[in-house]
Amino acid sequence: MTLATINPAVVECEYAVRGALAIRAEELKKEIAAKGRAQAGFRSITSCNIGNPQQLGQTPITFFRQVAALIEYPNLLDAQHRDAIKGMFAPDAIERAQKLLKAMGGSVGAYTHSQGIPLIRENVAKFIEERDGYPSDPNDIFLTAGASPGVQLILQTLIAHEKVGIMIPIPQYPLYTASIALFKGNAVPYYLEEETNWGLKLEELERAHTLGKSRGHDIRALCVINPGNPTGGCLSVSHMKQIIEFCHREKLVLLADEVYQTNTYMPETFPFHSFKKILMSMGPPYSTSVELISFHSISKGVIGECGRRGGYLECTNIDPKVKDMFYKVASISLCPPAQGQVMVDLMVRPPREGDESWEGYRGEVGRIYASLQKRAAQLAEAFNKLEGVSCQPAQGAMYLFPQIHLPEKAIAAAKKAGVAPDELYCMELLNATGVCVVPGSGFHQKSGTWHFRSTFLPPEEQMGGFIRSIQGFHEGFLKRYA
Amino acid sequence: MTLATINPAVVECEYAVRGALAIRAEELKKEIAAKGRAQAGFRSITSCNIGNPQQLGQTPITFFRQVAALIEYPNLLDAQHRDAIKGMFAPDAIERAQKLLKAMGGSVGAYTHSQGIPLIRENVAKFIEERDGYPSDPNDIFLTAGASPGVQLILQTLIAHEKVGIMIPIPQYPLYTASIALFKGNAVPYYLEEETNWGLKLEELERAHTLGKSRGHDIRALCVINPGNPTGGCLSVSHMKQIIEFCHREKLVLLADEVYQTNTYMPETFPFHSFKKILMSMGPPYSTSVELISFHSISKGVIGECGRRGGYLECTNIDPKVKDMFYKVASISLCPPAQGQVMVDLMVRPPREGDESWEGYRGEVGRIYASLQKRAAQLAEAFNKLEGVSCQPAQGAMYLFPQIHLPEKAIAAAKKAGVAPDELYCMELLNATGVCVVPGSGFHQKSGTWHFRSTFLPPEEQMGGFIRSIQGFHEGFLKRYA
Repeated sequence: MTLATINPAVVECEYAVRGALAIRAEELKKEIAAKGRAQAGFRSITSCNIGNPQQLGQTPITFFRQVAALIEYPNLLDAQHRDAIKGMFAPDAIERAQKLLKAMGGSVGAYTHSQGIPLIRENVAKFIEERDGYPSDPNDIFLTAGASPGVQLILQTLIAHEKVGIMIPIPQYPLYTASIALFKGNAVPYYLEEETNWGLKLEELERAHTLGKSRGHDIRALCVINPGNPTGGCLSVSHMKQIIEFCHREKLVLLADEVYQTNTYMPETFPFHSFKKILMSMGPPYSTSVELISFHSISKGVIGECGRRGGYLECTNIDPKVKDMFYKVASISLCPPAQGQVMVDLMVRPPREGDESWEGYRGEVGRIYASLQKRAAQLAEAFNKLEGVSCQPAQGAMYLFPQIHLPEKAIAAAKKAGVAPDELYCMELLNATGVCVVPGSGFHQKSGTWHFRSTFLPPEEQMGGFIRSIQGFHEGFLKRYA
Repeated sequence: MTLATINPAVVECEYAVRGALAIRAEELKKEIAAKGRAQAGFRSITSCNIGNPQQLGQTPITFFRQVAALIEYPNLLDAQHRDAIKGMFAPDAIERAQKLLKAMGGSVGAYTHSQGIPLIRENVAKFIEERDGYPSDPNDIFLTAGASPGVQLILQTLIAHEKVGIMIPIPQYPLYTASIALFKGNAVPYYLEEETNWGLKLEELERAHTLGKSRGHDIRALCVINPGNPTGGCLSVSHMKQIIEFCHREKLVLLADEVYQTNTYMPETFPFHSFKKILMSMGPPYSTSVELISFHSISKGVIGECGRRGGYLECTNIDPKVKDMFYKVASISLCPPAQGQVMVDLMVRPPREGDESWEGYRGEVGRIYASLQKRAAQLAEAFNKLEGVSCQPAQGAMYLFPQIHLPEKAIAAAKKAGVAPDELYCMELLNATGVCVVPGSGFHQKSGTWHFRSTFLPPEEQMGGFIRSIQGFHEGFLKRYA
């Protein structure tokens, strides 16, 4: 096998979140481990390239972990330990663990149903019903190993031949371009409007669709990320309705990536609405014909349980025979990780008022949420103070996506080095400060503009130092390339 | 989306292990849940269609689960609980949990390195070195979500265009035909010889390769499953050397599915040897040029931790630039499940003599192994007593693959119903007894022969009843179609 002989789609696909910057960050980590510090003097890497909250010290929800631990080692539930564990585990955690163990046949070590444990799918359906006020069927739910494999399953099914086009937002989360390339389809880009906080205009969808068709693409689906990644923008109801009408008119499957649905930081002005809810509220013919697949995940929100890989997708108006195909393909990989499924159950059925763990749960969730909200605002403000940088506030998600106006000399230097100008900026930032962000070019962006994506996940007590090191670097960079 | 518009590869691929039989078994489970029993009178489904030991009551290894539970809820390691947990967790389990938590940055909820946690890859490399006596490099190891996604990653990379052929054994584990179909390649079948306990002959490899080429296939790789699934056969060293020489001569990548490496039941006569070891023992040019990818899993052995999805692959003689591509594609799915990675660590670094958990661990492993060995022999004997059934003994793995000589009338009835004759047999077995096995046609088989695959995983105390219900059904079936 060489690059010349293997699948060209594998060679050509790009995934910037873990690309050149992340690889360089790994090298620096090794250097720090060996020498105590990097050449530039910093002693640790701040990984703002990926929404990985617990890596940066966000603590897990106690109730969730109690249940997970009891499921791992059910001997703790035996009579001999009954008294001893009372001081360690909440009664409702014990009860939940017992119920879930029963639902999985007694062990988290067994393969589950390929579509996910039936009880957990029932609970997901109830959660969706409560959230939206419209019915949801457990048979329309597929538990997945995070949202990413769910998106990949659907894209693989949609891409029937090499002319198939999939509409994606620009900037986008690179899962979309990478997966579309892997399955040999075509990304049909539509642009979000930075000036209106990454708004989505119907005319732009129409422009992109017409252009895609004129290039011979057989356009099958439209992806929307709401709240936006990397942009942080939240869609309004009127825009969502326009998108649904557009999908109806053009016979497009709507893929709604809603993994940041609880990460909304201005909930009164920019609340989250699910596409399922808006679609149902529109009534026929929309509610009965627009094909919608919605994705959710345990990796985001205030939960941040990325490592265990869990999530779900819900099918609305999907042909039952096509759902059978989803099931068949899912079954080839046997089942989603059982501990990921457990966490989906906990996400959709957290402690409620009156439960023993309620107060503790509410406190933890509230603290994490308030801190994310605060850090989002603090970092956006800091970015906006930098010379030549403008940054839209984060209405949602976990990222800021500031635009940087780079000096001509920096652009020329990047061209000479054969890298994108924002990649040059981000690589120098990493080498100088240990801060790892992702160049805007990895998400694609309006031609001639340069950005980077940074999470706002460094802990509150480190935000000051984090911001100062970016400021110091930025000033030096501008001087160096003045 | 309809079956006519979606990706035809998705529509056409088949995965029998969770196919029509498994779907019918789910229906019967619901019937039993509602009415207390199925129409035919049985009160439970015996799922022998899939190697899922813990579903059938195999108990997990205590040490492993203690470590996993502490990692889930590290608060148990806090000073306040120190005394209380002493009676619940072994000291070496506590120590291991602390080390692993440190290696994953403090939380099992964070994304890990996309190739897997570096410490765990180091431990996998040490395990391979000790097993084989040859060096192994942690950078050549990729942790995976079970062996299946590892196999799929490699097949996706290998299948560069629609003429690519991949040699696979017949009978095969249907992961191979399903994945090759999904990635739009071509399975090039070579046949194992049932009469010599599913032996592999060089002439058969040559015949299959020549035939594949004559059909225009660009043959890139050879898959071997050792110990065999569904056959239970173990390869001899001389056959393994012939396979390696063949791959060298024909420039084929060798994919070695070795997930059943500790499931050998006649270890003195038919011991397991890894392809890595045999390849290294052959010296240059073989040891320095034959491209080998070896797969292992936490789902099999005496561990049986299927649900958490863990495993690894090792690359030998693979171009570093191609390994970079594996890394890139792995990174699109972010990381393998962290609890699956933890279990890989425990599998390759179990308690050793002198450790606190050693005696308990040795006892558990010994009991599970002895019981598997006993049940394998018991079930093979029972199958061989059935009229018109012949069954090779299981040298390894978790399955028996008896051949059934079906009456002409049964074959005619199947033809009329549009199903394979062994599918008819298996479906009637399921409907009459609740025993779910997989028809041989799902694994492919020599034309004109009929088989089924059954695990020998029902608990010892149920084996008698299990065997009796198959015997009763079989006699009735033969009478019905006499």
